[in-house]
Amino acid sequence: MTVLILTCEEDVTADMVVVHLNASGVPVVRLDPADLPGGVALSGEYVHGSFQGHLSSGGRLVGIEGLRSVWVRRPGTPAARAVNPSAWLSEETSQALYGMLRGSDARWMNHPDAARRARYKPWQLRVAQRCGLPVPATLITTFPRAAEEFAERFPDLVVKPVSGAHPKDPPQAVPTSRVAPDADFSAVAYGPTLLQRRVAKRADVRLTVVGERLLAARRTADPNAREIDVRFAPPTSPWLPAEVPPRLAKSVRAYMREVQLSYGAFDFAEDADGTWWFLECNQSGQFGFVEVETAQPIARTIAEWLSRTAPQESAHVNGRDCTAR
Amino acid sequence: MTVLILTCEEDVTADMVVVHLNASGVPVVRLDPADLPGGVALSGEYVHGSFQGHLSSGGRLVGIEGLRSVWVRRPGTPAARAVNPSAWLSEETSQALYGMLRGSDARWMNHPDAARRARYKPWQLRVAQRCGLPVPATLITTFPRAAEEFAERFPDLVVKPVSGAHPKDPPQAVPTSRVAPDADFSAVAYGPTLLQRRVAKRADVRLTVVGERLLAARRTADPNAREIDVRFAPPTSPWLPAEVPPRLAKSVRAYMREVQLSYGAFDFAEDADGTWWFLECNQSGQFGFVEVETAQPIARTIAEWLSRTAPQESAHVNGRDCTAR
Repeated sequence: MTVLILTCEEDVTADMVVVHLNASGVPVVRLDPADLPGGVALSGEYVHGSFQGHLSSGGRLVGIEGLRSVWVRRPGTPAARAVNPSAWLSEETSQALYGMLRGSDARWMNHPDAARRARYKPWQLRVAQRCGLPVPATLITTFPRAAEEFAERFPDLVVKPVSGAHPKDPPQAVPTSRVAPDADFSAVAYGPTLLQRRVAKRADVRLTVVGERLLAARRTADPNAREIDVRFAPPTSPWLPAEVPPRLAKSVRAYMREVQLSYGAFDFAEDADGTWWFLECNQSGQFGFVEVETAQPIARTIAEWLSRTAPQESAHVNGRDCTAR
Repeated sequence: MTVLILTCEEDVTADMVVVHLNASGVPVVRLDPADLPGGVALSGEYVHGSFQGHLSSGGRLVGIEGLRSVWVRRPGTPAARAVNPSAWLSEETSQALYGMLRGSDARWMNHPDAARRARYKPWQLRVAQRCGLPVPATLITTFPRAAEEFAERFPDLVVKPVSGAHPKDPPQAVPTSRVAPDADFSAVAYGPTLLQRRVAKRADVRLTVVGERLLAARRTADPNAREIDVRFAPPTSPWLPAEVPPRLAKSVRAYMREVQLSYGAFDFAEDADGTWWFLECNQSGQFGFVEVETAQPIARTIAEWLSRTAPQESAHVNGRDCTAR
């Protein structure tokens, strides 16, 4: 039973996990969908009611039905390095590769459907509310009047993009910014705007979740910082391991079940009362920097999760005879 | 409880369904995401653990929490008709609209996740096999040698795209074609190729599924036809209503449950023995032409499904407190 890792060649974070997999003797095949067709080849046959498929990469052959798990890390666009690349070839190759893998019994970190759905910020906020996570008051609107009323109720606001990353290549993060007290909201009519009550934070919390395991890191915030977006602020305090409050842990596990993710990186803002306010859960959030600073065993935990052979609890088709219900 | 229809203005097939909804007095709001922001506006507020959102279109306001069902028919790209359209604005608008709708308790025809997943042909074939539908022997490969061996075993083959439609705007269907007996398969190495045993068909079958209801139409095939792709053949025989074999009906219902679709248009090829061979299931397949030719009540059945208020059986978040498990 092989672990399949889909990622680009220069992914050093994946290397950290592969080291642990190799040490435990679990077979690993790592490939980049950008190399299919070419350095990577695929074949799948549907005959007499059954399927037999395999992938080949660097002279190694792996059966699709014999996959233990699939880790979708930082895969390139399928066929991006083909002899004659095109949008059409990428679409064909993507459908062939992921279409076959979707039919396998492998456990996913993360399943492409769950990964895609998890990016919807308005849905994240709703799920977080339902799971009992504290969510700062938020408005997403194209009504200038609704924005004005919200700003009257919550005078200290930040504005951030609804979708997270600007669709440039490479993607560009758009920083969260404070809203000026006398802001003019008329432009809201020209594009959905996300306004959120600013949490006066005393610390940033990054909670990395791998399966059932929760690994929290905390960094004291600079009360005088002008830049409120942690991604754009110069590093001051170090990331240190932190305890997860039990009630919050329960809500986070419920969130993970609900969104069907096996890996998630939560960002919280800790206020003066010690409350962790949910900001977002990034299904592909980086963990290398946290592991390096805190020495928390995130890579090893991921390797252990990928190595497990127990069947995935999932709503997806998993090798069962689906008429048998 | 309102039915929300997401589609473009010129969708006459949607009109057929709206007629039935209007006749039964069910409130309907129809809008095109291309008109958001602009003719369509949206607002959603997350405060004190709960969500309140609404959409406005043509002066009508509809609450997102009060939606009965959402019919995703032929929606335009969000923000396509904005004052200053851009890929970024479309992404922001799409996330805002669908992100909020995903949090609602509405029943979907079809849910965007299920719709997207249902397009993967290799997965369709695998699910069809598992549900007991007859699937013609199929190979998807980038190995020329695998293609040659397959052609030796199954000398009468067709070739078709893995992904269905050529990614042009408007999308262009690529016809299924017969493979010449002396075909050279070396080019298979440059792009995944789908080869399938040709079914010597005596009829085409279109099976439209709406919830639990199956409506089949059958058209006698021209045995001398040169064009084997029904979409490109000149019409000869008419579409006529057909009985669905009970065992096949059971498999089709299992397929629909497995892929979590509430609407699907199956294409089958009927051979000389009367066997219906699964070709594909299109989650957004047209039904207008079938209804016009066969007088089968497809539009009315869709209207009835959309009108139902019973909660959807679904793996998605549906208003439950997700910590209560």
